[in-house]
Amino acid sequence: MGNEEFAGVFPYLVSPIGPAGEVLEEVFESLIEHLIRSGVHGLTPLGSTGEFAYLTWPQRKKIIEVTVKTAAGRVPVVAGVAHTSVREAVRQAQEAEKLGADGILAIMDSYFPVSPKGVVAYFRGIAEAVSCPVVLYTNPSFSSTNLSLEAVEELARVSHIQYLKDASANTGNLLTIMNQAGDRIKIFSASAHIPLFVMMLGGVGWMSGPACVIPRQSVRLYEMARAKRWDEAIAYQKELWSINRIFQKYSLAACIKACLQIQGFPVGDPIPPIMPLSGDSLKEVEEVLKRLTALGRE
Amino acid sequence: MGNEEFAGVFPYLVSPIGPAGEVLEEVFESLIEHLIRSGVHGLTPLGSTGEFAYLTWPQRKKIIEVTVKTAAGRVPVVAGVAHTSVREAVRQAQEAEKLGADGILAIMDSYFPVSPKGVVAYFRGIAEAVSCPVVLYTNPSFSSTNLSLEAVEELARVSHIQYLKDASANTGNLLTIMNQAGDRIKIFSASAHIPLFVMMLGGVGWMSGPACVIPRQSVRLYEMARAKRWDEAIAYQKELWSINRIFQKYSLAACIKACLQIQGFPVGDPIPPIMPLSGDSLKEVEEVLKRLTALGRE
Amino acid sequence: MGNEEFAGVFPYLVSPIGPAGEVLEEVFESLIEHLIRSGVHGLTPLGSTGEFAYLTWPQRKKIIEVTVKTAAGRVPVVAGVAHTSVREAVRQAQEAEKLGADGILAIMDSYFPVSPKGVVAYFRGIAEAVSCPVVLYTNPSFSSTNLSLEAVEELARVSHIQYLKDASANTGNLLTIMNQAGDRIKIFSASAHIPLFVMMLGGVGWMSGPACVIPRQSVRLYEMARAKRWDEAIAYQKELWSINRIFQKYSLAACIKACLQIQGFPVGDPIPPIMPLSGDSLKEVEEVLKRLTALGRE
Amino acid sequence: MGNEEFAGVFPYLVSPIGPAGEVLEEVFESLIEHLIRSGVHGLTPLGSTGEFAYLTWPQRKKIIEVTVKTAAGRVPVVAGVAHTSVREAVRQAQEAEKLGADGILAIMDSYFPVSPKGVVAYFRGIAEAVSCPVVLYTNPSFSSTNLSLEAVEELARVSHIQYLKDASANTGNLLTIMNQAGDRIKIFSASAHIPLFVMMLGGVGWMSGPACVIPRQSVRLYEMARAKRWDEAIAYQKELWSINRIFQKYSLAACIKACLQIQGFPVGDPIPPIMPLSGDSLKEVEEVLKRLTALGRE
Repeated sequence: MGNEEFAGVFPYLVSPIGPAGEVLEEVFESLIEHLIRSGVHGLTPLGSTGEFAYLTWPQRKKIIEVTVKTAAGRVPVVAGVAHTSVREAVRQAQEAEKLGADGILAIMDSYFPVSPKGVVAYFRGIAEAVSCPVVLYTNPSFSSTNLSLEAVEELARVSHIQYLKDASANTGNLLTIMNQAGDRIKIFSASAHIPLFVMMLGGVGWMSGPACVIPRQSVRLYEMARAKRWDEAIAYQKELWSINRIFQKYSLAACIKACLQIQGFPVGDPIPPIMPLSGDSLKEVEEVLKRLTALGRE
Repeated sequence: MGNEEFAGVFPYLVSPIGPAGEVLEEVFESLIEHLIRSGVHGLTPLGSTGEFAYLTWPQRKKIIEVTVKTAAGRVPVVAGVAHTSVREAVRQAQEAEKLGADGILAIMDSYFPVSPKGVVAYFRGIAEAVSCPVVLYTNPSFSSTNLSLEAVEELARVSHIQYLKDASANTGNLLTIMNQAGDRIKIFSASAHIPLFVMMLGGVGWMSGPACVIPRQSVRLYEMARAKRWDEAIAYQKELWSINRIFQKYSLAACIKACLQIQGFPVGDPIPPIMPLSGDSLKEVEEVLKRLTALGRE
Repeated sequence: MGNEEFAGVFPYLVSPIGPAGEVLEEVFESLIEHLIRSGVHGLTPLGSTGEFAYLTWPQRKKIIEVTVKTAAGRVPVVAGVAHTSVREAVRQAQEAEKLGADGILAIMDSYFPVSPKGVVAYFRGIAEAVSCPVVLYTNPSFSSTNLSLEAVEELARVSHIQYLKDASANTGNLLTIMNQAGDRIKIFSASAHIPLFVMMLGGVGWMSGPACVIPRQSVRLYEMARAKRWDEAIAYQKELWSINRIFQKYSLAACIKACLQIQGFPVGDPIPPIMPLSGDSLKEVEEVLKRLTALGRE
Repeated sequence: MGNEEFAGVFPYLVSPIGPAGEVLEEVFESLIEHLIRSGVHGLTPLGSTGEFAYLTWPQRKKIIEVTVKTAAGRVPVVAGVAHTSVREAVRQAQEAEKLGADGILAIMDSYFPVSPKGVVAYFRGIAEAVSCPVVLYTNPSFSSTNLSLEAVEELARVSHIQYLKDASANTGNLLTIMNQAGDRIKIFSASAHIPLFVMMLGGVGWMSGPACVIPRQSVRLYEMARAKRWDEAIAYQKELWSINRIFQKYSLAACIKACLQIQGFPVGDPIPPIMPLSGDSLKEVEEVLKRLTALGRE
């Protein structure tokens, strides 16, 4: 992919897994093809939405391989890498790069509490082991990793660490980071933030599960933001928000898999013990999708 | 004050308390005078920033009296009311209204966990006991009160409950509330949100401690937002954010009292056991204030 | 009461409050009379179980007055004192002592996070303002006050601070405290601990809500422990535990008021917005009481 | 090992890992040999203390193999098995049994919140896939898995699920479980409880990291408990508690590895990013060990 910068709408890819644990390649390829044709600017397999935490390394490897092969250089692939141990995370990152990933989404998994020094050592370890750009990723809903402002400032000085993707809902905290380290690190929004606002503050785009379900609408919102058509963008963002809302309300994996199945992509169920949506939850998701699909038509 | 609607910049007032527990009336009056001349649209004594939780009822009463007397009808006074028990909160609300408050900021204090029904009963109890508008207020940083979307929707149907002031940092949650109950309840931002963004979503203003320290700048930002001069507003908001940042970083009471003392208002120290700022913290606050004061000049 | 030491079973007294906020003196007196005749070693009005956090100072004052008057020197009265501010807590402690309390149960209420220094200042402030023994009390379920081992060690050196009553369920932490400061501070158990085990470690008794409901059984367990009849005590403790279990499962105030009403003490409902028990919860409480009442017969 | 029941002192084994990620077999074997000669009643590799969460499956496999081979049938081996996904946990459990484990310590790892049904499905899935006894294990300090009383009762009916090892510090909760399901499930204590008290309530022993460091003293305490020499046992337990205290104060892995290195077992450092103890922490650990070593001599 060369050295161009990452910016725009990067959907978190679902991980379609069959009953025997196999990656459902066919539907995965057709989904990726659909996303690229819808105009997304990059692909991020193995984020939280992609159930990275539930997959073995062979499954993760296959997910990266299929993504890279199907993307075929049309958009950059930023692959999620995560472990509790530095050594194993480094190994995964190096393998992901060899498999053709254009960037690494570095996620810290944890069990024991990690000291601030340990957090920095983890991300620095990954960044120094690869030659592609690295995105720092933290998700306070699921992990106790505390990426303090001080840690971000220190890590932003490491050469390959060029992006931060924060999955808290605290947009003010992103503004604080931008005010203090915005010249050294670029910010991607997550689905817990209102993506338009992160763009307004100087963010470069968003990495999110909803973008996998409404790629065309997400790209349209991104273009409004790039063109600074703020009034129009605000109105559109307010309408699109309903999909972020359901991603917050339900399990990420259950929600994205329900959405894609409704849209005709048989991506399978979440990996047990996570349960699929059903009943009223499923109905709510269907209604939101119906409304948003209409919004995606030109 | 008649029945006009609340909108705009409502500073949370500091509570200046002397060493013997007495309200420092003189400095309090001169601060209120200064705020009104700076163009604020209302006054909110006895919010979190005003240390309501540390004051006895006689102290709270005096704070309301001085605010009402000094405001003298020029701007509305929305007085904070809080207790663990419904009965006592109702009594305080009725007294506050008799003392001349134009609105009630209803805060729920808690000790035991409260059931969702209990939360609704508390706010409904206050609203039905007064004849002025009521602002629902929750602050998840300090209180375990959980004001669910369902509770907001139910309370938004109670006649005097017209406003919600949410002190979480989760702006997306405010958008969800606006999408579902925005025709029945109006939203004020808190200092944990980026106030400009709450305005963009349809909020009517903000109630916040920083507005007590930078009233002129706050009003200017509000006017930019009202005029939809978005690019200018975003740039200005990004600069002003440093004061919200210090209010988040330090104890609210310690921070506002340090700021006002630096500005020449001898409002005293926070109420023990809360400690005043000192050393590096105080220096950081001084530097932020210096920068923002320059921004306030025309 | 003179200067004898506090030891044994100290029931937390319920606070019987009528619909207009009045203290129901008659039932309160008859309950106290019943407890003293059942052999309890002291009385603790205004603990968590006594809904201190829901009462105004005049209500609290009345509760202390009635307790002191009814106890009439037969057993010591250790009155709960609590506020967010040091000054007000000191005032309450001094008044409680003047009203005849033999000891002060010092509880820290909080709203803003309090620094370790602030925590020490609060308890020290109370202890230095009274001339009777002070019991440190923390309840991590309801308050964020963090009484670290270091703080306990420092406070244990203040002359009037002679007891600690910890309401966590972490008995190991009590053993750590005893190992490090056991020569300077005595430990009372709470209902979240298994009281017998705190006794085995060297504790001097327990202050708890269940003891208000099963005073006779509690005293019997205490006597077994004092006599080191361990096997008998363990078996009895295992049976009595079901009442601690329901106090943990349900709101303390709802639970104690339901229990006492079942036993024929019309103490009223919990203070709104706390809701009384009903339906299956009430049935479960009734069954536990039935079983334990049988255990109380000689 | 046949079908005898698990009871007594089961040390959590450290996982000695070298700089290249290799299992340090020699020191591991000599440690196991030492533990068995010290009289322990079983071995539990791959608990929290054994850093299971930081090891790849090949590393875990090697740890089980060496343990089984070295134990050589002298004491039962209960191997830890953990994953976020049911399928992978089942696979690990089946492999562990094939490798010769006499029991499975079933640990639930989590990332997304898991529904109560999902929790039951996870543990049931493992139990139904193996033919050896299964120990339920939860550790609320490190994982958000909520094993409710209802879930324990349901799981206690599954045929292979015969033991529960709870790593909370809430001993009262264990008594509640024993009172309700004690005829169907046996309880092991963890180092967060005071082990003697769990024995007094009817527990069958303890699985803990400290037992790997003071095996002889642990066995002596267990024997006192079995003989119901309570006064002696309480006094001894109080002295031994200092090692549980340091395991709580410091990272489990850092603490056990420091202890064993001091004792002459070169087990290496914790797996990065977990940091080894140093300075004052190390000194505190050394002093505790010195005192307890003396206590271990006959």
